[in-house]
Amino acid sequence: MRFNIALCQMLVSPIKEKNISHARSLIRGAAQKGAKLVVLPEMWCCPYSMKSLRDHAEDIDAQSAPSISMLSEAASHHKITIIGGSIPEMSGDKLFNTCCVLGPDGEIIAKHRKLHLFDAEIPGDLNFRESDTFAYGDGPTVVDTDVGRIGIGICHDNRFPELAILYRSRGAHLICYPGAFNMSTGELLWELMLKSRAVDNQLFVAACSPARDPDANSDYMTWGHSSLVGPFGEIIATTAHEEDVVIGEIDYSIVQTVRENLPLERQKRGDIYQVIDTNRE
Amino acid sequence: MRFNIALCQMLVSPIKEKNISHARSLIRGAAQKGAKLVVLPEMWCCPYSMKSLRDHAEDIDAQSAPSISMLSEAASHHKITIIGGSIPEMSGDKLFNTCCVLGPDGEIIAKHRKLHLFDAEIPGDLNFRESDTFAYGDGPTVVDTDVGRIGIGICHDNRFPELAILYRSRGAHLICYPGAFNMSTGELLWELMLKSRAVDNQLFVAACSPARDPDANSDYMTWGHSSLVGPFGEIIATTAHEEDVVIGEIDYSIVQTVRENLPLERQKRGDIYQVIDTNRE
Repeated sequence: MRFNIALCQMLVSPIKEKNISHARSLIRGAAQKGAKLVVLPEMWCCPYSMKSLRDHAEDIDAQSAPSISMLSEAASHHKITIIGGSIPEMSGDKLFNTCCVLGPDGEIIAKHRKLHLFDAEIPGDLNFRESDTFAYGDGPTVVDTDVGRIGIGICHDNRFPELAILYRSRGAHLICYPGAFNMSTGELLWELMLKSRAVDNQLFVAACSPARDPDANSDYMTWGHSSLVGPFGEIIATTAHEEDVVIGEIDYSIVQTVRENLPLERQKRGDIYQVIDTNRE
Repeated sequence: MRFNIALCQMLVSPIKEKNISHARSLIRGAAQKGAKLVVLPEMWCCPYSMKSLRDHAEDIDAQSAPSISMLSEAASHHKITIIGGSIPEMSGDKLFNTCCVLGPDGEIIAKHRKLHLFDAEIPGDLNFRESDTFAYGDGPTVVDTDVGRIGIGICHDNRFPELAILYRSRGAHLICYPGAFNMSTGELLWELMLKSRAVDNQLFVAACSPARDPDANSDYMTWGHSSLVGPFGEIIATTAHEEDVVIGEIDYSIVQTVRENLPLERQKRGDIYQVIDTNRE
């Protein structure tokens, strides 16, 4: 199977309605360029500010979620699959960082709640505690779509090689990471993480960041550099930090070829280590 | 603890005696420059040619191993720890690709037999089957030395993130990979693998390759680029592909700081995935 994927590196504004209509127009543009799979960034519907996230939260289960309604309409209108980046999701009294996946009929076919919250305290650089604001998701997400079996992770989820290994063992040929690395982790780690998850697991990796907003009154400036990486660790499509829609081709036959040429999975030493899929039903 | 590590990126000749005396002189030079830990490359005592490996094999358990005798003498003479790259080891009728670790008293304190043999068939590029020649090692190696707790892997062992995760969970602060990547995997993967193992496990990674021999009548040209990488994925010391002794400083307090600032180990989701140390006694 071959298809085009689009990564919408969107510039997020403080006004939610504006973000929803702007995302709608980026999805339209991506679909018109032939993308069958469109990925949005982490927290595309509102600024990633811990203070205001609850004000912008949506209740997906109660179908009171304007961002997801738009994605549903867009997916069915263009007959595409959408990895809906993430939005703040209110469920009971808990706030989650949640990615919905929508199929070409507009239905939600998967919902991934961020599993690994970014708590870091780096003197002189960064003090960030997502776990003060968000609750933890409770399971991994691998979803069968019209464009193949896809594993989902949000941002810090990609720092954990075990999750990508688990997604590969569940049959994913593509992992999509909406994410918003900051300037320091971005420069050090963004490309490295995407390439190593792709190479270690011999699959495609796509990551979609918000565009960097140099004027934002924020303590968190995003790295950008949304990218599609192939199973050799090769960068197939990428961009800098401004708003952009990155389009690249995914050809799953390459995954099969790479795995036949170098059968890493068979070469693993189950007698020495094993990654256990604890959560599997 | 702070100390200097030396990576001897040695040019290997077809003549074994010459390699042994040349390695001895590189170790002397490294010790004179203050290195407390010296690493040799994979297959430093003879050419990495499947045809002749058995001719150069040594029986370490029977103490009929001139390469290891030299390393023992060098370690005790200079009062240093040596990660002895690898040599072809004959044990019974089996041939292993084996790394000995020697302490400052000259004793062998660990012996690592390569766990993952490189079998790859890439049309038009490479056809390589180590498992036709070598037998598989049967366990991971973490060794307590005068310069800390060190995990050992040989070349293709570094393509498996699970092994590095296991070494971290067993308390390693440094993983040493003697290795001899070729030109294609070297360019694509060498630096990527070293950095990602370091970053994912928040520890130091050192990799030592033979120097590239452009005149060698060989089907396998090595990449070189022996490197020391820190726990942020930063390259502390490296070189190109000619013979060189790379010296860099390891300061384990950085490992502790990085792990305190960003406690990845605590952030892992044991309820979703677990790396099991199958082989643990």
